[in-house]
Amino acid sequence: MSQDHLDARRRQILDGARACFARHGYEGATVRRLEEATGLSRGAIFHHFRDKESLFLALAEDEALRMADVVAEQGLVQVMRDLLDEPEKRTGEHAADWLGTRLEVSRRLRTDPDFRARWAERSEQLTTATRQRLIRQREAGNLRDDVDVTVLTSFLELVLEGLVSHLAMGLPAENMEPVLDLVEETVRRHRRSS
Amino acid sequence: MSQDHLDARRRQILDGARACFARHGYEGATVRRLEEATGLSRGAIFHHFRDKESLFLALAEDEALRMADVVAEQGLVQVMRDLLDEPEKRTGEHAADWLGTRLEVSRRLRTDPDFRARWAERSEQLTTATRQRLIRQREAGNLRDDVDVTVLTSFLELVLEGLVSHLAMGLPAENMEPVLDLVEETVRRHRRSS
Repeated sequence: MSQDHLDARRRQILDGARACFARHGYEGATVRRLEEATGLSRGAIFHHFRDKESLFLALAEDEALRMADVVAEQGLVQVMRDLLDEPEKRTGEHAADWLGTRLEVSRRLRTDPDFRARWAERSEQLTTATRQRLIRQREAGNLRDDVDVTVLTSFLELVLEGLVSHLAMGLPAENMEPVLDLVEETVRRHRRSS
Repeated sequence: MSQDHLDARRRQILDGARACFARHGYEGATVRRLEEATGLSRGAIFHHFRDKESLFLALAEDEALRMADVVAEQGLVQVMRDLLDEPEKRTGEHAADWLGTRLEVSRRLRTDPDFRARWAERSEQLTTATRQRLIRQREAGNLRDDVDVTVLTSFLELVLEGLVSHLAMGLPAENMEPVLDLVEETVRRHRRSS
């Protein structure tokens, strides 16, 4: 197979696996269901990815990279706004289902140091992109300067984690826009004293 | 049995069940394991609680009420600070394990309207306590007055959800204090313009 074919095959596996994880959860995504969802044999799937864990982590990495791209251009709050819009944009797949799968692995993340290390490696890219964006914003004078960039980065990431959890639990999202406005304002500019 | 005995028995079941859910997760907390953890027969357990779901929701309600008490006196940020301290305070049981169980039911919350309604009923108490506290704080002049109390309530709840998720995933908590300071400041007082 040519590199193009390999890349396309890899994409086919990832897209099918993502839908499968979203629909059945991490534990429920059996090898048989992964075969059905990707339209490929287990041999073909695990030729590209060592095991289910690697497949899941590749999807998490994909997502972190996509988010990091948005962060670089528009900031982490925009990533959150995109998550709110997602249900409208995507058809067929429910974004909340995939977000929920991320929550379902929390026990594994907590108890399996190797899995946690592999996950952390992937999510580190998002943290780095967020920190770099904030540093650039500070240099441009758009960021508050009385709080450390590390604290602001953790703050934004904590809100993102809250939003992921909120959406994954199917809680109402329609009133979240003013909350994200507040989050953005907290990081960006100083308010006038009243 | 007297009411005191019934209350003590109920407490015994809840304490054992909480440890069992924390240790094995929602799905992993089988009836057999619940019997072991509580030291009681399934007959005795399900005399007090209709089913496993009711047991889990009673624990969630317990927790919401405990948090609502702290909120009334000290606010929702204090609830978050308590969560950070929890690992040190409790011995034997890991707070993150129970928090993780809450995440594991996210798929169920999303897909089972009846379960979601029962869960929402319980978490509503925390929202109400938070909103009431903020209204009192506003009346006392301690709260910013340019953002609606509903938005501030949702903001604090979103950060709490993020913190629960963060701790449940076993992510580092040691640098969270300045982040919570920032959250508190965002809600409470106006900053001077720079």
